Amino acid sequence: MGCSYQFDHCFQKGKRNLITDVPGVRVGHKTLAHGEVQTGVTAILPHGGNMFREKVMAAVHVINGFGKSVGTVQVEELGTLETPILLTNTHSVGTVAAALTRYMQQQNPQIGREASTVNPVVMECNDGFLNDIRGMHVTEQDAQDAIEDAREQFEEGAVGAGRGMSCYHIKGGIGSSSRILTLDGHDYTIGALVLSNFGRLEDMILAGKPIGRKLAEAAAQEEERDKGSIIVVLATDVPMIDRQVKRMCKRAVVGITRTGGYTGHGSGEIAIGFTTANRIPHFNTAQTFDVRMLAEDEMENVFRAAASAVEEAIISSMLHAPALIGRDGHYRASLSELLKKIGEKG
Amino acid sequence: MGCSYQFDHCFQKGKRNLITDVPGVRVGHKTLAHGEVQTGVTAILPHGGNMFREKVMAAVHVINGFGKSVGTVQVEELGTLETPILLTNTHSVGTVAAALTRYMQQQNPQIGREASTVNPVVMECNDGFLNDIRGMHVTEQDAQDAIEDAREQFEEGAVGAGRGMSCYHIKGGIGSSSRILTLDGHDYTIGALVLSNFGRLEDMILAGKPIGRKLAEAAAQEEERDKGSIIVVLATDVPMIDRQVKRMCKRAVVGITRTGGYTGHGSGEIAIGFTTANRIPHFNTAQTFDVRMLAEDEMENVFRAAASAVEEAIISSMLHAPALIGRDGHYRASLSELLKKIGEKG
Amino acid sequence: MGCSYQFDHCFQKGKRNLITDVPGVRVGHKTLAHGEVQTGVTAILPHGGNMFREKVMAAVHVINGFGKSVGTVQVEELGTLETPILLTNTHSVGTVAAALTRYMQQQNPQIGREASTVNPVVMECNDGFLNDIRGMHVTEQDAQDAIEDAREQFEEGAVGAGRGMSCYHIKGGIGSSSRILTLDGHDYTIGALVLSNFGRLEDMILAGKPIGRKLAEAAAQEEERDKGSIIVVLATDVPMIDRQVKRMCKRAVVGITRTGGYTGHGSGEIAIGFTTANRIPHFNTAQTFDVRMLAEDEMENVFRAAASAVEEAIISSMLHAPALIGRDGHYRASLSELLKKIGEKG
Amino acid sequence: MGCSYQFDHCFQKGKRNLITDVPGVRVGHKTLAHGEVQTGVTAILPHGGNMFREKVMAAVHVINGFGKSVGTVQVEELGTLETPILLTNTHSVGTVAAALTRYMQQQNPQIGREASTVNPVVMECNDGFLNDIRGMHVTEQDAQDAIEDAREQFEEGAVGAGRGMSCYHIKGGIGSSSRILTLDGHDYTIGALVLSNFGRLEDMILAGKPIGRKLAEAAAQEEERDKGSIIVVLATDVPMIDRQVKRMCKRAVVGITRTGGYTGHGSGEIAIGFTTANRIPHFNTAQTFDVRMLAEDEMENVFRAAASAVEEAIISSMLHAPALIGRDGHYRASLSELLKKIGEKG
Repeated sequence: MGCSYQFDHCFQKGKRNLITDVPGVRVGHKTLAHGEVQTGVTAILPHGGNMFREKVMAAVHVINGFGKSVGTVQVEELGTLETPILLTNTHSVGTVAAALTRYMQQQNPQIGREASTVNPVVMECNDGFLNDIRGMHVTEQDAQDAIEDAREQFEEGAVGAGRGMSCYHIKGGIGSSSRILTLDGHDYTIGALVLSNFGRLEDMILAGKPIGRKLAEAAAQEEERDKGSIIVVLATDVPMIDRQVKRMCKRAVVGITRTGGYTGHGSGEIAIGFTTANRIPHFNTAQTFDVRMLAEDEMENVFRAAASAVEEAIISSMLHAPALIGRDGHYRASLSELLKKIGEKG
Repeated sequence: MGCSYQFDHCFQKGKRNLITDVPGVRVGHKTLAHGEVQTGVTAILPHGGNMFREKVMAAVHVINGFGKSVGTVQVEELGTLETPILLTNTHSVGTVAAALTRYMQQQNPQIGREASTVNPVVMECNDGFLNDIRGMHVTEQDAQDAIEDAREQFEEGAVGAGRGMSCYHIKGGIGSSSRILTLDGHDYTIGALVLSNFGRLEDMILAGKPIGRKLAEAAAQEEERDKGSIIVVLATDVPMIDRQVKRMCKRAVVGITRTGGYTGHGSGEIAIGFTTANRIPHFNTAQTFDVRMLAEDEMENVFRAAASAVEEAIISSMLHAPALIGRDGHYRASLSELLKKIGEKG
Repeated sequence: MGCSYQFDHCFQKGKRNLITDVPGVRVGHKTLAHGEVQTGVTAILPHGGNMFREKVMAAVHVINGFGKSVGTVQVEELGTLETPILLTNTHSVGTVAAALTRYMQQQNPQIGREASTVNPVVMECNDGFLNDIRGMHVTEQDAQDAIEDAREQFEEGAVGAGRGMSCYHIKGGIGSSSRILTLDGHDYTIGALVLSNFGRLEDMILAGKPIGRKLAEAAAQEEERDKGSIIVVLATDVPMIDRQVKRMCKRAVVGITRTGGYTGHGSGEIAIGFTTANRIPHFNTAQTFDVRMLAEDEMENVFRAAASAVEEAIISSMLHAPALIGRDGHYRASLSELLKKIGEKG
Repeated sequence: MGCSYQFDHCFQKGKRNLITDVPGVRVGHKTLAHGEVQTGVTAILPHGGNMFREKVMAAVHVINGFGKSVGTVQVEELGTLETPILLTNTHSVGTVAAALTRYMQQQNPQIGREASTVNPVVMECNDGFLNDIRGMHVTEQDAQDAIEDAREQFEEGAVGAGRGMSCYHIKGGIGSSSRILTLDGHDYTIGALVLSNFGRLEDMILAGKPIGRKLAEAAAQEEERDKGSIIVVLATDVPMIDRQVKRMCKRAVVGITRTGGYTGHGSGEIAIGFTTANRIPHFNTAQTFDVRMLAEDEMENVFRAAASAVEEAIISSMLHAPALIGRDGHYRASLSELLKKIGEKG
């Protein structure tokens, strides 16, 4: 049975159909929603322990580098992630990075003393259409609040960093989903979380159906240029080394394209992934140690599952987001309402 | 009017709807088709002059590096292409590279003497299902013949390097198409040529319609794993520098995905692009000189046109290929016939 | 006459022997020096105009990615730099990025409204040995002050971001130098500025002389592991496209190695370069335009000049830095004093 | 005790001081030396078994991509090497790649049938000054012969692929050395083999001594431009994953620079590395399996050892090469003779 264009068939989903189906992963939000201020922070915590002392294998793939995410250089070099991943709006990256540095310092008195410095990972999209991004309203406390809000059952849609985002020129934001893989007789999970902020409505495809033009007519809004921005976070407990995680991240673009995207010029599209299967201790006792990896041929199913999870996460970000009026009366319609108008089911 | 999922609308096509609509570009084939030997060589010539003396700006993007193409390292470093691009089967790359080196030497007595050596670019897919690839049947003369066959009006389908290729587990091969862009009041062309050899039939999408499962039922063939291989050549006369050509190449994956691909593990997916707008002389007279580039925002339309051209080129490679019985009686059905069976129009 | 191991011969130097010999380039510092706080900010301004409206062609080369610099992803994608480059300590990157975003917003009311967001470039080394890096003492005002301090005749040594840095386990910091190239009858300049913070004393080489062991005996300090961090900024007015700027940046490691470095595991080594010869307007009027590039063969002299400038800039950063006692009484000796002890001339 | 500029101190050497001190590694040559034909093939075999069935973890680092080596794309993607590494002259790469493909096919009847195709790795330098490179004199049989000649105690200097190479404009070729590391109480080896073909004589540094100008005076030959080409092969049995092997490869440039190189524009500089500690089976029985890696901090000594081994291997390639008269009477002096002239010890 095939599934490349219909996200809901091929693989079993996790019990919540969220990235937090990967054991240990939690997600928290801090949402700012008052008048011109429609923004926030979302935190993804790979495990419940101390991330600096117990790093996870990780990789980054830049799909389109017209973006301002930070922390990618070290993840590429060392193949590890040593902080939670924080998402926010483009102009709040600096503040959120400072907050994340401070949070890691509090947890780890060795950082910047006998241990090295810490590499905060903060990723972003531009929510300036709905949010007063020039106001730089996110505070260090907001970032801290998002981390502390981390939980397994989290909200999707116009929340956290997704508060002011637009996808296909209607309302986007935070979306998530998960897929189950069986390897050597054990079940593993691949989870996706997206911050969706790209696309042109007329291009949109829903579960293989090109309904964008109908939606565009129903929305009756002016055509705009795509600004093309999306952050994709892929989490898994499949045993992989960082090169394999990077290969997985490269398939995010398949999920994006299946919803109608084409990686426009406008803004950053970045995928970051990690596996909780291989934990790398900061303070080593042994000079060499074992990590577990996947037989390379088995990546095939990882790729299909990741593409499928990303496709559904994008659609989910939109299905969960109500219409919103933000800065200067700018308006984004809701996918659910438009689907009702054209008589389609989400 | 939108066009992301229907390749035939948004942009006007060139007069031949082939990569040779880009002025100066020509394509030649040498086809080997007898019994177990179902393979060949395809040559893409960027212009009619001496490629070593008058290089074109170029770039490569590796989508999935499970492949054996040669010449990419220097194209990346210097941003130029100094030979025709030859396509063939994986195990004939060495022989074809030797032939291309010899061909360039014949044209240029300075190579390897007062001038530097030459960088042959040869790209490949694995046609081992239909062709006796272990036989390494392509000769240096075959490569030379393909170059000499270069013309504006060339064949698509099961010809040249495409002779033994399979796409979506039915018959693939060489496909091509072109799109017209208007910039500063002038018309420019973006042309695509693909060597298609990837995908699972049930995943296939035709012009936005997910007809793969119907095709799979009609074909009644066993499901196989995707081996995922495709070479994409993008030619244009739009003024771009090599970094911009690389960005264009990165959108090839959008066209691939729109036909149902998901960049499987199995084999190489590589896009190479060049622009004839900027010619770089090997023997310079001036130490500095001007090149023309596109305002970065205008890349948007280049991306859409390239994705659209690649999508159509893939479908075209299949529509032009009749069914074929090759090595050991291995059989690939023809898309046209399958479409008739299920009552769809190509 | 050769010059690869003696930085002062081959090329003529600019009149100040500073990066500011490149016309238009200015450098400013804000130094924090009180007790445990030994840190600061250094700003490099590529030209005197509005950097967002008139970007410069630029590139980044990551030598060793164990670092936390921000802004590199977009520079790589678009080949342009649209802000001043700010240098600071690792844990102050977030605050300085926020400050730079705010500074750019103030200059450009379009940013985050009708124009896109802005990509602040902030690079760092770890000054935690001498500075209370955990205190995160740099403020947004400090970053602003550094920008406003920009001038042609600036100080080197233990100033600005260099205040707390250690090189070869003695005192390092900010160093700079320049070289003159003649092309097509015109003089051009290549300037280097480094934030030096790497190396083991016994490895040090001064102008081709391996005097490290003698220095190490004179210093009588305990051997430490290299933390290996350096930021190299290369500025020029030689006409190059961004790919060529990147090739230039790759030769920074030659200059580093000539002083005794070996690109240790410990921390980030990154080179960023730009050319003022090609200005890219944010608000285009034309869809295509000319840029000027160097005949590729002529890169040879660019490479030699860049390597030579980087070598001297590193040595210069040390020769200008007096001994310093910082956090917890940590002490770094001065190269000048050690040279006197062993009877060598700087 | 320091060692960065004197290759013979810091680390103990292996018993042969050759790359074959890494257990299992063997090297073979085929030398063509008659009149205008001064060239050949060198083969490096990572282990004595079947390389396709039992791959080794590997990585490539392109220092300067002005080169024509083949096979790098797949090594990068999959992190494995599945053939011996063959070295030859630039224009013989195609022929040697064809020969290596054929050799692998003979050993593995599954290749190109039920298994995938094979990725031959062939690397090159331009020996056109001494050798009639346009003649393309290397045959498939020569490549086969080089593989069959593989042994532990092999020759250095003007042999195999090194026959016609020039280093520092005197005679270069094949050089090798090794270093011992102790980890968790066990001894491991890092071995280097170079094909040296770069540099300007006046720049040359011997064990930290800048003796190039004296050599240049003694040689009394005309100054030429650097063509800058070198292939570095790094072998080890230190447990590393492919990302770590790549980091090791990046330090080859340190060894090159210590001998006076500066990574000139002219030709390719590529480092390829592999570890025999992690063998990856082609035909997997398990879907997941363990590999062993090095604690990242321990890379420090790997870097120092690799840089040191590369430095010595380059010098060794020259010390073992007698003077040679080749094509058109072109002459390269011998380092040993020049050292005698200027009264220095090699």
